[in-house]
Amino acid sequence: MSTTKARRIFTEEVSALCPGEVRLKGWVYRLRILGKTAFIILRDCTGEAQCVIASEALKDHKLKVEDVIEISGTVRAEPRARTGCEVDVSEVHVLNRAGQTLPFQSAANVETVGLDTLLQYRPLSLRTEAVGDIFRIQAAILVYETAHVYRAEPHASSRHLTEYYSLDVEFGFIEGPEDVIQFERELLTDIFANLNVKYGELIRKYRTDLLPSMLDVPIWEFDTCLEILRADFGRTDMEDDLDPLAERQLCERAAQENGIPAVFVLGFPLSARPFYTAPRGSQGAAGGFDLLFQGLEITTGGQRLHRREDLESALRSRFIAPANFESHLAMFDLGMPPHGGFAVGLERLTCQVLNLPNVRQAVLYPRDRYKITP
Amino acid sequence: MSTTKARRIFTEEVSALCPGEVRLKGWVYRLRILGKTAFIILRDCTGEAQCVIASEALKDHKLKVEDVIEISGTVRAEPRARTGCEVDVSEVHVLNRAGQTLPFQSAANVETVGLDTLLQYRPLSLRTEAVGDIFRIQAAILVYETAHVYRAEPHASSRHLTEYYSLDVEFGFIEGPEDVIQFERELLTDIFANLNVKYGELIRKYRTDLLPSMLDVPIWEFDTCLEILRADFGRTDMEDDLDPLAERQLCERAAQENGIPAVFVLGFPLSARPFYTAPRGSQGAAGGFDLLFQGLEITTGGQRLHRREDLESALRSRFIAPANFESHLAMFDLGMPPHGGFAVGLERLTCQVLNLPNVRQAVLYPRDRYKITP
Repeated sequence: MSTTKARRIFTEEVSALCPGEVRLKGWVYRLRILGKTAFIILRDCTGEAQCVIASEALKDHKLKVEDVIEISGTVRAEPRARTGCEVDVSEVHVLNRAGQTLPFQSAANVETVGLDTLLQYRPLSLRTEAVGDIFRIQAAILVYETAHVYRAEPHASSRHLTEYYSLDVEFGFIEGPEDVIQFERELLTDIFANLNVKYGELIRKYRTDLLPSMLDVPIWEFDTCLEILRADFGRTDMEDDLDPLAERQLCERAAQENGIPAVFVLGFPLSARPFYTAPRGSQGAAGGFDLLFQGLEITTGGQRLHRREDLESALRSRFIAPANFESHLAMFDLGMPPHGGFAVGLERLTCQVLNLPNVRQAVLYPRDRYKITP
Repeated sequence: MSTTKARRIFTEEVSALCPGEVRLKGWVYRLRILGKTAFIILRDCTGEAQCVIASEALKDHKLKVEDVIEISGTVRAEPRARTGCEVDVSEVHVLNRAGQTLPFQSAANVETVGLDTLLQYRPLSLRTEAVGDIFRIQAAILVYETAHVYRAEPHASSRHLTEYYSLDVEFGFIEGPEDVIQFERELLTDIFANLNVKYGELIRKYRTDLLPSMLDVPIWEFDTCLEILRADFGRTDMEDDLDPLAERQLCERAAQENGIPAVFVLGFPLSARPFYTAPRGSQGAAGGFDLLFQGLEITTGGQRLHRREDLESALRSRFIAPANFESHLAMFDLGMPPHGGFAVGLERLTCQVLNLPNVRQAVLYPRDRYKITP
């Protein structure tokens, strides 16, 4: 994609940018073809925008309601439009197609759709205004989506637990894993700044410095990391993952270069990441990353696959029959945008903030292979 | 207890109240008897206070480290004390005794206590400064303690789920369930005020009024509720609990009286509440309450038993051998203060805020007796 294109904005910002160039991403909410002119109502999480295009120019796109699209165009005042302006479309790009037959449309009155159907197709029903409203309110009450995570893995180390608390962030319409990394940089910087202000005195008991800004934490490709480990530390034993020593060594190197012992490692081998991970380039690398902070991996994230056919191929390449995942795959017919996210291990983050040597210190009642009481 | 006694304050407020009358609650952190004078270092969640009393006056209390106490006294400037003031004790009241032998004291250097021991006795290790610090930071990162709750109950109604999201609040040093109710009034009022400000327009789509202040929601004794149901609604079929119709009827009555369709029902029969519920008076009532809001119970709470012997009696009265609960009961030897709390069902609260008829509408993937997919 061109790097000179307009910044992506949300539909709620359109009227403030009239007249001007905009780039929007969202779903086809309504589609009306009136002779030579076609109207696309694009909807995103902030509202909707009326977009105008010549019917002829739209023909090849075979656009339909719930398809995931990106639109570039020019905002123009239009008193007849609900928001007082319209977007003259210069370019339409289909990011992902919805299935040919859907149980309902996001413009539907949800009262005409049965609750069972709304529950069966959550990604689609969340896109309706009425169901979306419910979870906007619930999110306002709760803040994060947080959940206990259970792992059946044969670890017995100072950094692994069989139950931990995960702060999960997942969002749509990304252009690559760098968007996810940037979001995490800003989130951690915000959390750290808050801790410094409210708990500075406490934090100084555990570390000589306050918590750093994470905005300048670099991204290093996995291959570059292997090269650093070889050149600086004489290590040639890492292949498709990093061991704890390598994590410490890379953070040491990052601290020398940037003053902060942290680095995002991007582009691990695809074979070492979950099947739903998007590829990065064509050389077998994954659009997945780890954040190493003070010598420890504290988050894993990346771009996910968003097309059903890509997910099916990924499953088949691991000798798993897609039919076994049909209930999951069916959700990708509903108009799934390019997306990604990351998960922060709350206990590991606490450890790194306070320089604690053992993750169990940051859990009220830790669970591991040998501890199930109290 | 007398209603004229000083308001309970935290130790961090003591120096600001010098000279003045104070009432403190906390644990005996250190105890030094120097001839005729004894020093009690009382510790609470905000710090510590040095309290002075004649050794003779203290003798009968048989005080020891980790006992839970309430102290009334007068603050006096004392340059030799760490905080520049001392409390001259006029009254000591033991709220609960710690066990005779404890694995360590909260004044201990936790580095001299093994991690296994710290994990085994969490209520005590949390009271040490170092372990407390860890969870103060973790709480600052996370906000609420929130958890999924699983229920194996034979319900199939519009208000029950087998998995729901519970916002739990539990705190110590209460004087009765009224303290818990007051905290909940303030918390809900704060949540509602925030929703009104940030989501007022959305909320007005679902209800004619914005969300009310809950500060004046009344407390009605369970017996009074039965009387209202009889006198106003001709109902004589309720005995030890309220059915959904009764909840609606009581809210209707509360709205007539106070303008808000909400009421705290306090003093349900002890036999209808969990074994750990504290009694209210001597007539078989419990210090447990429900909050009814717009015709639906959205929280349950109350004062809990805090003495091991009371818990053992409660278990025996239900024909349960205390030995089966020993790992739980052992925690009550560590200096357990009078405490209580409540749990808000996040989905039910969302329903009542938006006037939704079915709790499943407020869950992304509801689980009930008949629904385990998607």
